[in-house]
Amino acid sequence: MNFLEQKILADGVVKPGNVLKVDSFLNHQIDIRLMQKIGEEFKRRFADVQFNKVLTIEASGIAIAAFIAYLNDVPVVFAKKGQTVNSTDDKYVAKAYSFTHKKFNDIFVSRPYLKPTDKILIVDDFLADGEASKALIDLVKQAGAELVGVGIAIEKGMQPGGAKLRAAGVRLESIAIVDSMDPETGFIKFREQ
Amino acid sequence: MNFLEQKILADGVVKPGNVLKVDSFLNHQIDIRLMQKIGEEFKRRFADVQFNKVLTIEASGIAIAAFIAYLNDVPVVFAKKGQTVNSTDDKYVAKAYSFTHKKFNDIFVSRPYLKPTDKILIVDDFLADGEASKALIDLVKQAGAELVGVGIAIEKGMQPGGAKLRAAGVRLESIAIVDSMDPETGFIKFREQ
Repeated sequence: MNFLEQKILADGVVKPGNVLKVDSFLNHQIDIRLMQKIGEEFKRRFADVQFNKVLTIEASGIAIAAFIAYLNDVPVVFAKKGQTVNSTDDKYVAKAYSFTHKKFNDIFVSRPYLKPTDKILIVDDFLADGEASKALIDLVKQAGAELVGVGIAIEKGMQPGGAKLRAAGVRLESIAIVDSMDPETGFIKFREQ
Repeated sequence: MNFLEQKILADGVVKPGNVLKVDSFLNHQIDIRLMQKIGEEFKRRFADVQFNKVLTIEASGIAIAAFIAYLNDVPVVFAKKGQTVNSTDDKYVAKAYSFTHKKFNDIFVSRPYLKPTDKILIVDDFLADGEASKALIDLVKQAGAELVGVGIAIEKGMQPGGAKLRAAGVRLESIAIVDSMDPETGFIKFREQ
């Protein structure tokens, strides 16, 4: 069992409706040493590929992206949701369905920050149905950039996102893959890796 | 002139409507070495105070918070905007007026992540009218926690947020304070510190 699986067992909470609550260390309160370990683990797993930019999506992907980017000395770009007054640039826009919010969200990256010459590592905190990852990959493709891989902290293996990405030939590395969980007992089964 | 002022002069863009666009290095694409330097500068400026938690607000505050938290080995908590299905805890909620989006936004932190015993350093990328900082301070007060200071990367000194916080006795440290800027010429005047 790796460090992240141990942390999930210790501090994650299984809730009804297929919810794994990890906001005490990952996506509301952030355990910074854990982020560092996640960054180091991504560095190890993606040691054989080269990338010059880490792409994620606001908000909870940013802390994870910061450490792998720091370790490889490359910038982070985070895709934004919705529109802002200060963002008048031409954008790459993709649609992601949010099962949490039950609607399609536009996500975008301003064109100057994704270039055809870029080699992109996508990272995010969660992969479930794969909508966010799919939309981020869409942005990379629109820019004509190269996707070198997708690094995920926690994959919910009982949802189809991971299987779809792997079937599409994407190099996907998930540090912890939850294959089942039980809100009654709190039991969490991780996939052997 | 410090490292952040130099970076703003090199890569910031002054736009009409009092907008300083820094999304090439701070709040869309993120220059990770710059975040590290901002973290180190906060560590230096707040060396005389003790804090056990860094509080910021999603999304662009997170990368800044990550490095000062890393250097002091404390967790980050980021306040969220709006509501999510997965966040059913009791919350501390405060209102912040967004001049960008021209509306009041609720921001919140789940109660377990702000405690009466916490000593909190608030950090954010920008301080202009001070609405976000004021709302974050409100959350700290609601929790009965202690505010030790507010660290800002870029303060827009011609807007009233900084003056209001200082008048209220808040220990405010802004790495770069822009006192005026001209969209015609791109000229940016920084306050002497």
